[in-house]
Amino acid sequence: MAVYIEPRVLKGFRDFLPPAEIVRRSLTEKIEASFRSFGFVPIDTPALEYADILLGKGGGETEKQIYRFTDNGGREVALRFDLTVPFARFIALHYSELAFPFKRYHIGKVWRGENTQRGRYREFTQCDFDIIGSDSAAADFEILLLICSTLQSLGIDVTIHVNHRGIFNRFLEHIEQSKNSVEILRTVDKLSKVGEDETLKSLSELAGEANAKKILEFIGAKGSFTEVLEHITKLAGGTCPESERLYDLRRYMDEFNENTSIKNISTNPFVLDPSITRGLDYYTGVVFETFLNKMPDIGSICSGGRYDNLAGLYSKSNNSISGVGSSIGLDRLLAALEALGSESAPDTGKAAIACVIAEKSGQYQALADKFRQAGISCEVFVDACGEKNLVKQYQLAEKKGLRFVIIPGEDILNGSVTLRDLPNRQNTEMSIKEAISIMGTSKNSF
Amino acid sequence: MAVYIEPRVLKGFRDFLPPAEIVRRSLTEKIEASFRSFGFVPIDTPALEYADILLGKGGGETEKQIYRFTDNGGREVALRFDLTVPFARFIALHYSELAFPFKRYHIGKVWRGENTQRGRYREFTQCDFDIIGSDSAAADFEILLLICSTLQSLGIDVTIHVNHRGIFNRFLEHIEQSKNSVEILRTVDKLSKVGEDETLKSLSELAGEANAKKILEFIGAKGSFTEVLEHITKLAGGTCPESERLYDLRRYMDEFNENTSIKNISTNPFVLDPSITRGLDYYTGVVFETFLNKMPDIGSICSGGRYDNLAGLYSKSNNSISGVGSSIGLDRLLAALEALGSESAPDTGKAAIACVIAEKSGQYQALADKFRQAGISCEVFVDACGEKNLVKQYQLAEKKGLRFVIIPGEDILNGSVTLRDLPNRQNTEMSIKEAISIMGTSKNSF
Repeated sequence: MAVYIEPRVLKGFRDFLPPAEIVRRSLTEKIEASFRSFGFVPIDTPALEYADILLGKGGGETEKQIYRFTDNGGREVALRFDLTVPFARFIALHYSELAFPFKRYHIGKVWRGENTQRGRYREFTQCDFDIIGSDSAAADFEILLLICSTLQSLGIDVTIHVNHRGIFNRFLEHIEQSKNSVEILRTVDKLSKVGEDETLKSLSELAGEANAKKILEFIGAKGSFTEVLEHITKLAGGTCPESERLYDLRRYMDEFNENTSIKNISTNPFVLDPSITRGLDYYTGVVFETFLNKMPDIGSICSGGRYDNLAGLYSKSNNSISGVGSSIGLDRLLAALEALGSESAPDTGKAAIACVIAEKSGQYQALADKFRQAGISCEVFVDACGEKNLVKQYQLAEKKGLRFVIIPGEDILNGSVTLRDLPNRQNTEMSIKEAISIMGTSKNSF
Repeated sequence: MAVYIEPRVLKGFRDFLPPAEIVRRSLTEKIEASFRSFGFVPIDTPALEYADILLGKGGGETEKQIYRFTDNGGREVALRFDLTVPFARFIALHYSELAFPFKRYHIGKVWRGENTQRGRYREFTQCDFDIIGSDSAAADFEILLLICSTLQSLGIDVTIHVNHRGIFNRFLEHIEQSKNSVEILRTVDKLSKVGEDETLKSLSELAGEANAKKILEFIGAKGSFTEVLEHITKLAGGTCPESERLYDLRRYMDEFNENTSIKNISTNPFVLDPSITRGLDYYTGVVFETFLNKMPDIGSICSGGRYDNLAGLYSKSNNSISGVGSSIGLDRLLAALEALGSESAPDTGKAAIACVIAEKSGQYQALADKFRQAGISCEVFVDACGEKNLVKQYQLAEKKGLRFVIIPGEDILNGSVTLRDLPNRQNTEMSIKEAISIMGTSKNSF
């Protein structure tokens, strides 16, 4: 009896068939091209690390979700669950080999044993980009500009909600509620979920009704970037380094917009939104979240902020290395693009040489080569179906999403070919040169 | 007391710093471009699968090397150790969604707990490409041509050693040694390690001295492709379907070479080498190994062959799906290129805008944008160092491997800039347009 194993994939894991994988790769390539154009360089780290490194101070959700086991050598190991912790370890380990400020990107898979019922995957891709070793406003601005530029290069209109974690802390000091800051942040973070009444109630219990109202006034401030900034600066007790940082960013944004020819970026997608606090994350400075204008409800597709001393846990020295960075959630972005019907699947394998007589395969490949040399992706069908029955090959080409089939003539390499335009169901005899010219005008980079 | 965790990576695992990662990505991109030009499409599969799927019939080396554990849901899971087994499972699972013959590539990491003392890694990258659902000689030929074309697009001269597994089996039948075929294959496979005398001794014990000499004559046949083919056909008892397949391939190669303008491929890198048997692998038809002309001792950097019924283990139906495919060992290839000093690291982050006055960052980014729009990768330095001390910024740029630093003028966006040519230690004042023109001529695609 033959052995049989039922083919299946683990819950929360996915196969990517060519149409989906082509879209993913095309998107990733565009994102990478944008990162590179800003001089960001790639790194990579292992999928598997020592568990103590990944868990760090440990505890909480991470501990429950992580894929952790003992390897054959008795080591406690785990699959990375984000790209931030490995990056912190990387910075500590390679500090002396890097040039600071260090601008890197990292695109890779991460694994979390999350509850898949919320539509989450257990294997997904993150695209992280950071500037490490500078605490300048210029670095904050560059990350914001790069988010903007990258997403707009994908043809996506976004609004980036910016805030400063420190100005909220100033405000809490000013109203003498610093001692409750963790609970207040946690409560405020749930605002959009539980509603204003419920939040006011919870905050009143924590800080008294007057303060609760002030907190809601602070995080609910509306208006232009500058109007909101003036308002919250006043609520926080007046000008402070944190409000100055936001004024700097506003000025950089304006000066960039006044001086750039990029139409999309000059529409200025930045708003100051004091409700963005990034909860209990490790951020200490500016924080931001990015929403699709056409689908804000899907949540932030690119979040981040400024942090102090990223590598502190792995570093013996007292040099703290601050930085600012962000992460694009590729899977959420793809899901949104798909829902919007704008995932812009690029064409692939534009054309095929029909296989009329299998024994001519050497010459067919030489013919295909003429098209490939001209930058046209061209495959050669490998099974003959008889000179007079090309319909099956047209069907195969259509199933593969090709645009053209080239039917070689009698003199394969020097004579004419018949070009089958599949969507138009049209066959036209022409020279190879003419075919290259027609196909070249509809070719695609993928 | 602050917590401290020593930063380290697992034995056999590696961080990739930007210079190495840039080379890897550049290489992968060129390989992918070649695959696509032949109409091959990408797929992806999970890193983690059910252990029973990956282990299949199980046993042997694989079982010992695999990273296997029980997940939080009590499932027996494992990290993929190659891309072939997941592909077999993929074909069985998605059979009805695919168009056959199906030409796919898959570039991804795999994990094996191998002995690292042999210079092996426990995490490495494979690039697999296959044609499934055709048993034609045209498919065999296309895979061989694609190996050749891909490696030559990387500027690497290779020799591809081709053989047919079936013709060796015919030969063993002819000398009435089929019953010993597994042991003979195993012995023959060690020839290059143990030498001819030792092999002759082992073979004599298995098959008698006369047959042992015939076996060595068969696998040692030398000469042109056609000469060797004639010789081994005779030894195998005369013309058979397997020798005909090799004649077909030879003819396709010749006809391709006669009709192509690609100089590199027309040097014809194919040899018929009856010693290539691919040991106890699952191949049933043509088999091949690829060697660097400048460094053959490193071993095959791209091996493969034809197999029957890839997905049989995961398929209830009796339709066997044969195919032909190959795999590039990216890490071995990279090690070889590095040793040859020809890994051709592409430039990245060609230029930086010096940060003279930090508060001008908005305008500096708008200036950088003019270069980016022209396809020049341009970063903006984010920390000022004073107008008169640019030396530190030159040093940073050099450490990052940049070619140019642009020092903005007083009128940042409409005036002139000073272009610092780092390797030549030369500063020249010029218009922005002139700078773009000079930098554009030395720009690189990465």
